[in-house]
Amino acid sequence: MKTISENRCFGGTQGVYCHASDATGTEMTFGLFVPEGAPGAPVLWYLSGLTCTHENAMTKAGLQAWAAEAGVAVAFPDTSPRGDDVPDDESYDMGQGAGFYVDATEGEWARHFQMESYILSDLPETIFAAFDLDHTRQSITGHSMGGHGALTLAMKTPGRFRSVSAFAPICNPSASDWGTPQLTAYTGVPSAHDATVLLATGGIDIPLLIDAGTSDKFYDKLGLDAFAAALAMTKTPADLRLQKGYDHSYFFVASFAADHMAFHAEHLA
Amino acid sequence: MKTISENRCFGGTQGVYCHASDATGTEMTFGLFVPEGAPGAPVLWYLSGLTCTHENAMTKAGLQAWAAEAGVAVAFPDTSPRGDDVPDDESYDMGQGAGFYVDATEGEWARHFQMESYILSDLPETIFAAFDLDHTRQSITGHSMGGHGALTLAMKTPGRFRSVSAFAPICNPSASDWGTPQLTAYTGVPSAHDATVLLATGGIDIPLLIDAGTSDKFYDKLGLDAFAAALAMTKTPADLRLQKGYDHSYFFVASFAADHMAFHAEHLA
Repeated sequence: MKTISENRCFGGTQGVYCHASDATGTEMTFGLFVPEGAPGAPVLWYLSGLTCTHENAMTKAGLQAWAAEAGVAVAFPDTSPRGDDVPDDESYDMGQGAGFYVDATEGEWARHFQMESYILSDLPETIFAAFDLDHTRQSITGHSMGGHGALTLAMKTPGRFRSVSAFAPICNPSASDWGTPQLTAYTGVPSAHDATVLLATGGIDIPLLIDAGTSDKFYDKLGLDAFAAALAMTKTPADLRLQKGYDHSYFFVASFAADHMAFHAEHLA
Repeated sequence: MKTISENRCFGGTQGVYCHASDATGTEMTFGLFVPEGAPGAPVLWYLSGLTCTHENAMTKAGLQAWAAEAGVAVAFPDTSPRGDDVPDDESYDMGQGAGFYVDATEGEWARHFQMESYILSDLPETIFAAFDLDHTRQSITGHSMGGHGALTLAMKTPGRFRSVSAFAPICNPSASDWGTPQLTAYTGVPSAHDATVLLATGGIDIPLLIDAGTSDKFYDKLGLDAFAAALAMTKTPADLRLQKGYDHSYFFVASFAADHMAFHAEHLA
């Protein structure tokens, strides 16, 4: 692991690091905020959306203020493997910057696009080996494609996370062009990575908070109606908030970052 | 209007009164909590569920503590006209104690079962004439059949209420045996009084909070899945909370009474 930068931030440290990942077969960059004076702090994973790197949320979501107050570390992974020898696609929602947090099995993607294993194994092993953080206390959140990642990874690994939240998540990708083409190309089976399908078939047993903005121009791609119906049909404890006038941007994420951090901090305590 | 009782309660007064209603053609009894030292206080209407009178929520929901703190008056109407000459039905969910907050047009029910007019006109006129309260600041809530009442009356009267909430509301009655037989008998048109249908066709433009318990044994009668999908589909600003392990009782209502009062107080301020 190599340190790219470390900045003092709300009394703690906002670092950017890189490491060689066995899962992706590439060098991967990630951000990590560690609060001051909180050895053994719990960790909140923040998964970013399409086109993002490790950097967007780290600089624009404003999570560090609340994380410092709550004594919670926040990890900001990248959204895909990257590099000249890593396959890509001309569209913004496929290939580099658009890993969809799954392990690809199909075609040229299978070699490097192993983001599920990267987020669940490689990166945590790297982080917990290098920093004094508590691997028994982890929660997960994310935005858009990262909300899809947070919801599906939490449902795929019962017991792993203490709470899950999402900002404007893609939550019915097998019925959306934000999901179906990509998950088909990567894995052949979009429904196996669809939060609505996973909820209806296996459920989720940890506290769940979702925010979405009613002026989100990508709203119809998210599938919130199907997910909301599935939540109610399965009687899943949850808080689903439709926030008037907010859009899909980091201004929306930042506006509710304090609520999400307070939610996770309560369950990580 | 006649005073039946007045009790000192959290510094204010919990009264019970009766009056002759033109709408129902009967004498009607209601409860009213007026906080201390708050002339011109806003009013929260609390509509009760099947089998209830004005008294159940007044004695079991624990709203007065928070209403006193917030300086909000709370009105507790009865759930139907009552009396020996008022038609009734042997079942608990039809007739007296089960007015469903509509104006009946059909058969024997039409004469007295005018609960929509009673709640929207007769009772407010009586209350605002007799008490120093602010008719320009009203919000509405309710439980079960009363949640149906709160949601539908709010949607039927845009601009009337500043916020609406509900505890375990019947919210898709035209697809439930808690609603279809009764609304058919009273009005002939259940869909005209169905919160899910009203939301999908006309929407709602005030803040909305709903709580329901995941261990509610009447859960499947409520239609929360259809309402949740309609909320998301119409991008309606709302907070829908599915509360783990709570049932349909007043213990559930009381557990979240403070949250609902804080929600309304914010919008009544």
